[in-house]
Amino acid sequence: MNATASTSPSTSVSVIGLGNLGQALAGAFLAAGHPTTVWNRSAAKADALVARGAVRAATAAEAVAASDLVVVAVLDQDTARTVLESAAAALPGRTVVNLTTSTPEPARALADWATGHGADYLMGAVYAVPQTIGTDDAFILYSGSAGAHERYRAELNLLGGDTFVGSDPGLAAVHDVAILSGMYGLFSGFFQAVALGRSERIKAVDLTGHLNRWLQGVLAVLPEFAAEIDAESYETEASSLDMNATGLRNILTATESQGLSTELLAPLQRLLDDQVTKGHARHSLSRAVESLKPAVR
Amino acid sequence: MNATASTSPSTSVSVIGLGNLGQALAGAFLAAGHPTTVWNRSAAKADALVARGAVRAATAAEAVAASDLVVVAVLDQDTARTVLESAAAALPGRTVVNLTTSTPEPARALADWATGHGADYLMGAVYAVPQTIGTDDAFILYSGSAGAHERYRAELNLLGGDTFVGSDPGLAAVHDVAILSGMYGLFSGFFQAVALGRSERIKAVDLTGHLNRWLQGVLAVLPEFAAEIDAESYETEASSLDMNATGLRNILTATESQGLSTELLAPLQRLLDDQVTKGHARHSLSRAVESLKPAVR
Repeated sequence: MNATASTSPSTSVSVIGLGNLGQALAGAFLAAGHPTTVWNRSAAKADALVARGAVRAATAAEAVAASDLVVVAVLDQDTARTVLESAAAALPGRTVVNLTTSTPEPARALADWATGHGADYLMGAVYAVPQTIGTDDAFILYSGSAGAHERYRAELNLLGGDTFVGSDPGLAAVHDVAILSGMYGLFSGFFQAVALGRSERIKAVDLTGHLNRWLQGVLAVLPEFAAEIDAESYETEASSLDMNATGLRNILTATESQGLSTELLAPLQRLLDDQVTKGHARHSLSRAVESLKPAVR
Repeated sequence: MNATASTSPSTSVSVIGLGNLGQALAGAFLAAGHPTTVWNRSAAKADALVARGAVRAATAAEAVAASDLVVVAVLDQDTARTVLESAAAALPGRTVVNLTTSTPEPARALADWATGHGADYLMGAVYAVPQTIGTDDAFILYSGSAGAHERYRAELNLLGGDTFVGSDPGLAAVHDVAILSGMYGLFSGFFQAVALGRSERIKAVDLTGHLNRWLQGVLAVLPEFAAEIDAESYETEASSLDMNATGLRNILTATESQGLSTELLAPLQRLLDDQVTKGHARHSLSRAVESLKPAVR
């Protein structure tokens, strides 16, 4: 558990949406002794929680009315809005914590709507698989109402570690998009690595053991890169753009000679080459971020 | 230090190539009390090591002749071959450990040449920055002569942790290409993440703190994916291809709406969509590796 302050067991909580995440959230509140009301479009998803002491609401409006703290975890922001619209009359004075995955624009649109209907509103991006909710492996980034975050911090801490990232309710979703982009980059590299190993009958589990060990060390370097990027100051003694541009080119050549496409990593080569062409060969690898193109609209 | 067996201080060692890595390697041998001979094309690079007790060889041939164990760390395999050719007469009976970065084909070509000239030969891929040589943060994957690895294991352990990955001398280089591919994928994701954060004035250092925490957890999942890939058995309860295909598409859409190109991650989307199209929507994300294209020759 991550709770750093004691929660008041008298705080009642409603959880709307009982997919894997919602069930885990409701389970964490129940385990801590909070009166917990639950609602899901298909009611059967509440059965196990009701057996553990949860109250089943007949409608979303009833669930919102039942508790000061209302946690929403549904499919997407459109679904969240449909559900909250059906409970609009009960919203004034409630604190809604929306943990539904979102991109920034829909997150901001729903936050505007909900605060316009009298709710205190907090958006959260959950970094956890349902099994880790309530453990140190889970954390949630919140944005929106600082007051709501402060008021219910102890209860929210029951779900996992937390950080408040700003009053703009879209910021949690921006973090979400960014962090999941980082994850998909890692997956891209993993697939490329495993495919290369397979081309020589190296077992993926053996290769992954070595890969993970090395990537642990690489993760430790990212904060230095981040500091260079924040300062827009790319002088370095280590890991220069030209060394990496040459190294990556050799890797892509070797990848082709192993019979494999370079499609996953070739785009990064373009960024590195672009920075070298612009005269920054001796600067830090981190400068590659400056070569990401604007979107084509 | 990673030494698990005591080294015989009487084992003399030669280090050829005194760039940052070579200097660190020679320093580790000197620190452990081994008679250490060094050679570099520009002799001044040896000065600091000589001041610490190293013997300066006048030629590469002299360095090879001076020790039973000869460690090579030069620019590339062409340079390594040029250097070893100049010492060909001294090679018979020596153990050459080549730690020069390589792709598989040149690694195998040089190994064939060296063993053909009477050397016992080990290729190594170094996972370390020079500052971590000799610490637990460094590790080296070796392939080639199992006998050479066994005979000098204690001495090699002075440089960092080690693993022998097979008798084919190219295997260390295959691992190198694969593991560095994994690293460049991680970098691609990092740059995309930071660029997204910047589009909303989120500091890279703050974002990277959260990103690293999440990626630590993601690294822990990779061995499961690897086991699925080895078994070519992709049934799963979690992280299905269609969920990820939808999630990644939402992220790419949000990325564009933040004004940023999706160039770094769009190739992965193709892999996921391809597997979904082939009817594997409910299979594990790990199956994406099956959609990596063959190289265009």
